[in-house]
Amino acid sequence: MVRREALTYRSVGVDHQAISRSLRGFLRAVRPPRPSGHGRLRLGPGHFSGLVRVGRETLALTTDGVGTKVLLAEQLDRWEEVGEDLVAVNVNDLSAVGARPLALLDYLAIPRPEERILRAIGRGVGRGLRRARCGLVGGETAVVPELHRAPDLSGTALGYFPPGRPPVTGERIRPGDVALGLPSSGFHANGYTLVRRLVEREGLRLGSPLPGGGAPLGRRLLAPSRIYTPAVEALLAEKIPVGLAHVTGGGVRNLARLRSGVGFLLEGWPKPSGLFRWVADLSGLGPEELYQTFNMGVGFVVVVRSSSVDRALATLARAGEPKVWVLGRAVATPGVHLPALGVRYEGY
Amino acid sequence: MVRREALTYRSVGVDHQAISRSLRGFLRAVRPPRPSGHGRLRLGPGHFSGLVRVGRETLALTTDGVGTKVLLAEQLDRWEEVGEDLVAVNVNDLSAVGARPLALLDYLAIPRPEERILRAIGRGVGRGLRRARCGLVGGETAVVPELHRAPDLSGTALGYFPPGRPPVTGERIRPGDVALGLPSSGFHANGYTLVRRLVEREGLRLGSPLPGGGAPLGRRLLAPSRIYTPAVEALLAEKIPVGLAHVTGGGVRNLARLRSGVGFLLEGWPKPSGLFRWVADLSGLGPEELYQTFNMGVGFVVVVRSSSVDRALATLARAGEPKVWVLGRAVATPGVHLPALGVRYEGY
Repeated sequence: MVRREALTYRSVGVDHQAISRSLRGFLRAVRPPRPSGHGRLRLGPGHFSGLVRVGRETLALTTDGVGTKVLLAEQLDRWEEVGEDLVAVNVNDLSAVGARPLALLDYLAIPRPEERILRAIGRGVGRGLRRARCGLVGGETAVVPELHRAPDLSGTALGYFPPGRPPVTGERIRPGDVALGLPSSGFHANGYTLVRRLVEREGLRLGSPLPGGGAPLGRRLLAPSRIYTPAVEALLAEKIPVGLAHVTGGGVRNLARLRSGVGFLLEGWPKPSGLFRWVADLSGLGPEELYQTFNMGVGFVVVVRSSSVDRALATLARAGEPKVWVLGRAVATPGVHLPALGVRYEGY
Repeated sequence: MVRREALTYRSVGVDHQAISRSLRGFLRAVRPPRPSGHGRLRLGPGHFSGLVRVGRETLALTTDGVGTKVLLAEQLDRWEEVGEDLVAVNVNDLSAVGARPLALLDYLAIPRPEERILRAIGRGVGRGLRRARCGLVGGETAVVPELHRAPDLSGTALGYFPPGRPPVTGERIRPGDVALGLPSSGFHANGYTLVRRLVEREGLRLGSPLPGGGAPLGRRLLAPSRIYTPAVEALLAEKIPVGLAHVTGGGVRNLARLRSGVGFLLEGWPKPSGLFRWVADLSGLGPEELYQTFNMGVGFVVVVRSSSVDRALATLARAGEPKVWVLGRAVATPGVHLPALGVRYEGY
């Protein structure tokens, strides 16, 4: 195999350290007021969703966007998939704290008001909302060519906790608990800046299939994020999960967000296949970079007591998730450890 | 005076009809599910905020951005003001349905992670949040130079209704009620595409004062939006308002959003002064275009029973709003009528 320079996020112009530094500067500067009654924060920035209290209700809120995957949508002129992604990136973050999605607000920042494109995005948003059983309560469409080069699709979602259901923050996880992995449908909405550079560098055609055949590369890359809400709701109805994680930017490191002092030893992560094998082979990236950039086949992780594994698998099968991996288990050593790959992440 | 070609939004490349058409296409395509219990919509898109029901609570949600005012911030390299605007555009929309702001989520879409700029935006966001007594429950910073030419600052806000306070949707307005106007601090976050073209066309210097003196033009144009939440909360505590309107894009036409079948006859709108006089004189725009583009001095309208006017004015004065205009009254004829200007708008 030809030796290539590895494509890292730094090398494609994304400087995570500078972004983190700026973000910390922003949050320090805000110094928001901390309400003591209504609006009391139950869970602040850093987890998958924020939690606030209103009367007897606890509400979950999260905001996220589709990112540069829209540039692939633009290249292929297919927009339904990223519309569905807009819903998925948000409702999955609600499910990752055990909240049931209730309402979405979309924010579409677009350079031109092209009705055909907005209708296609709308069809995808609608499909995602119906899958998550989530309403649309508002939105904003900003048509500002001077700010936007390409459509930026983002949204904010509100979730609630049905009576008797507490939030699942991961604080109940203890060593010995088991991490189950639900399959992803591809890269979901993360890693596309790198993927697009790879396609460009290798001169790949989006219309041609991967080695091994199947759908054209572009269509596979554009596959919408899976929505895990129905599966997670089925598990929550049985009070099974003690921890939940949406595997997004940061990849498997997302597990480090669940409980400080507890780590994960993951000996059963599935071997990369399909797109993940493709990106590993072509990019020249080592496993450490790969597993913190892409979901590597697992889009959502459910942590359960070891005594609940069988019940969890049966519940997931009934909810339409027959293919679930036993990824590994919680351990008393912090960090996320993939021993087969020689990779250990200390935190998120 | 030299005769100039009028600068309309159409002439500066903003096609409101195409935007409305695309947006209708999007909403028709979405076909979101309509939950019947939790999450039932009380008020859909079209009003200032959406309302949803969770348990015993009614919640208000809204999402909005600062728009092209950021380009002025960029030119002047001053960012605190637009940070404050990000909060204002959202919390004022919550106040316009009578909700009390509870939590904001920011969405900062920026081309580069410049810590200095993000800190300044953060200071402005913090100032706005403290003014509105609103928390920060989450946010997302997307650093994507391929999507964004300049920072796009938007957010989503959640509000609630304290026990005993119903939403104020305008449905209780009846002919004879009185519209009171609260002063704006300038253009707030609307009309900047037009204003920037005007500055450019006239070759104006942002460092020079307006005719008549005062602060430099750029600083005046950048003044942050006023936050009306404290004033509106004071009125709501006294159960005074029957209608509330945030005067944003669409200007005075926003009053047409309150109650179908009821209109407003506004004989007491203040004469344009300061920036509003300046934009009227320089732009060549007629009153019809001016009053549907800019807030023309009034940033928020409160509709009260005629018997409550004195109590409303006293409450507003105690809340720090000594300068309030009696704009006119609700009438049985739909539309918004400014007879002194010969302008009548049929709807929003």
